[in-house]
Amino acid sequence: MRIDLARMQRRLDALTTPALGGTPAGGMNRLALTDADRDARDLFVAWLREEQLDPRVDDFGNIYGRRAGSAPALPPVLIGSHLDTVPGGGRFDGILGIVAALEVVSALNAAGRETRHPIEIVNWTNEEGARFTPAMLASGAVTGVFAREWVYARTDRQGRSFGDELARIGYRGDESARLGPIAASLELHIEQGPILEAGGESVGIVEGVVGIRWCRVTVRGQSAHAGPTPMTARRDAMVAAARMVVAARDLARARGDFNATVGDLTPTPGVVNVIPPVVTFSLDLRGRDDTTLEAVVADDLRKRLDHIAAEEGVRYDLAVEWSVSPTPFAPAIKDRAEALCRARGYSVRRLWAGAGHDSQYLARVAPAAMLFTPTIGGLSHCETEDAPWPDIAKAADTLLALAVELADDGEP
Amino acid sequence: MRIDLARMQRRLDALTTPALGGTPAGGMNRLALTDADRDARDLFVAWLREEQLDPRVDDFGNIYGRRAGSAPALPPVLIGSHLDTVPGGGRFDGILGIVAALEVVSALNAAGRETRHPIEIVNWTNEEGARFTPAMLASGAVTGVFAREWVYARTDRQGRSFGDELARIGYRGDESARLGPIAASLELHIEQGPILEAGGESVGIVEGVVGIRWCRVTVRGQSAHAGPTPMTARRDAMVAAARMVVAARDLARARGDFNATVGDLTPTPGVVNVIPPVVTFSLDLRGRDDTTLEAVVADDLRKRLDHIAAEEGVRYDLAVEWSVSPTPFAPAIKDRAEALCRARGYSVRRLWAGAGHDSQYLARVAPAAMLFTPTIGGLSHCETEDAPWPDIAKAADTLLALAVELADDGEP
Repeated sequence: MRIDLARMQRRLDALTTPALGGTPAGGMNRLALTDADRDARDLFVAWLREEQLDPRVDDFGNIYGRRAGSAPALPPVLIGSHLDTVPGGGRFDGILGIVAALEVVSALNAAGRETRHPIEIVNWTNEEGARFTPAMLASGAVTGVFAREWVYARTDRQGRSFGDELARIGYRGDESARLGPIAASLELHIEQGPILEAGGESVGIVEGVVGIRWCRVTVRGQSAHAGPTPMTARRDAMVAAARMVVAARDLARARGDFNATVGDLTPTPGVVNVIPPVVTFSLDLRGRDDTTLEAVVADDLRKRLDHIAAEEGVRYDLAVEWSVSPTPFAPAIKDRAEALCRARGYSVRRLWAGAGHDSQYLARVAPAAMLFTPTIGGLSHCETEDAPWPDIAKAADTLLALAVELADDGEP
Repeated sequence: MRIDLARMQRRLDALTTPALGGTPAGGMNRLALTDADRDARDLFVAWLREEQLDPRVDDFGNIYGRRAGSAPALPPVLIGSHLDTVPGGGRFDGILGIVAALEVVSALNAAGRETRHPIEIVNWTNEEGARFTPAMLASGAVTGVFAREWVYARTDRQGRSFGDELARIGYRGDESARLGPIAASLELHIEQGPILEAGGESVGIVEGVVGIRWCRVTVRGQSAHAGPTPMTARRDAMVAAARMVVAARDLARARGDFNATVGDLTPTPGVVNVIPPVVTFSLDLRGRDDTTLEAVVADDLRKRLDHIAAEEGVRYDLAVEWSVSPTPFAPAIKDRAEALCRARGYSVRRLWAGAGHDSQYLARVAPAAMLFTPTIGGLSHCETEDAPWPDIAKAADTLLALAVELADDGEP
């Protein structure tokens, strides 16, 4: 029983053609619930049928296909990912996980291998959150995080709602089709970072998904004209904010136990010859435990910002606008995965996922785990996103073996 | 022969009523060539008539009023400023200079004092450049900097042209009315900075207007997801740009011979969880001589930015987008002004103007000078802009005496 790498490549190619959102530069534009998403779904559904998995669509557009087990009443082992992409995204993020899930079923079918528990594969709607915020909307919905009416009312920038668009593309299914009890949840995904590549490892076993704090820092100084105001008589919110950006980075680098990123920064009024009275910036903090994140926000970082504000004669406010606790994955599944890799001689590394994934919501309802494959240059969410196929083969083989073990044993 | 401070205050109040653009917070909204500007012009014209100065409007809307001299064929001594304001600006910027120019004529008229040269007062159109860029458009036009068709075609954000708006408010006059040869040019203005207030001086004698370089710096790093990208594996354009902002400020503070301001900074794409691949920012550099500015741009600053770019693994480009040489004012007039202040016991200081003024264009065609009054808290271009009247009285008295000296002597 082996995975068929050529079949995986053919399916990945078929899911990333120009008709399905492929871009001339080799990337992907397939926002959730667009025509391209519908066409990719149609292809996924066709493959489910080819593999004798009767497709099932729930009221959030999630598409499931179940391969029966020898004890069909037992809860299935779930394997899934997502077909939607960010604008100008890559060919691997999510799509590779769908192809790998299909491959598990295809390999089992080709080998005529029966499992005790059923195996169910799934495509989650709107994982990226690039069209309808927040991310992981539909996996969150079926795991009790979001209410349906709220999900349906989410709108894109043109004001079109999730519910209407879901119906428009013909994927508004039935509540009765939703995810039922599951024995375990698995997902294969590209790392989207440089760690595995740097270490030369083929397979990553994901310890969990980091916790996140999204903060908004507002710095208030004194507006003044750039010309007549001496350098020594300024309360310059831009200079203070710039020092804070650097301080957050330096602290994260020095401590080594959290990441800090400033992606957005806006001076007001934003005029060349006006010393800005107000500068706001976003601060994305990620770490493996809440204690660290709380300490950073409340203590270490705040002390540095206080010091800068005092030196620059400005005031500042740091507000935590969004907070997510870390999600550790199931230790037993991670151990099984590592043992399988080692038995096969695959180089393996445990690492944390820095970005959100549907699997973190599935961890609320079942033992869950993820496997990562290396990402070339660590680049993701861009058209040059790429992953080495020899490593993908090892990760997919591990996924297959892991799914079979869990489906036979029933307990992680 | 004395200036009448109460009359100056009444005129300033009359020029800043709500009907003429005064705001509830005590500031001013009187963009050039709006209805409020027209109504303020009408009042200025009425005062010119009251003082027996026959108003003259040129083809840029500049309004002149000449008080004849005993030798009427001699070129006049010009005194002027502007009635337009920035949005949310103050009651003193420009308007005080108009009131002071009127006061010189009123004081001479009240005293029946004749001068040898005529004295001409003027309101310049669109000094601020807040509606039609660039600033000092109409004084530049009559001193040969800008061509009329180009000036008329300047549009505001709604696409309305300078020429059309000038005609609409009834102030599109005749080319024959333009500024003719002048013996000298004077302007009284608030400092718009903190220097006189800090030094406790009542009158500022302006050495000249600083030179300016407007630069645009573009920093290019590597886009990556904030989550999966370790702090040690980043080429973060935001962090690099932030360090550059601080470096420019630190260099200006350390050298002390130029000012550096970053008023605008824009990350792309500006998303919370994306390490920005591109950040651009404006850099406003001002100094008293071109040699300093050239050295800063080409050498001192560039070395620091090179160093930061190398450390952060980014590339950057610094483009000088606009360049103005410093304008020193006429030494003989500055010396006369200082002597007049000292003879009267007025505390006086020489200082550079950091912002542009119409007088810098007048310096192209005649000996020119400016007097500054202190500005409370150094605050300008804001609704709380204010200036101490006792100091204004001394500056206006100096302006009167200086105008009479120049108009009698004819030579600065």
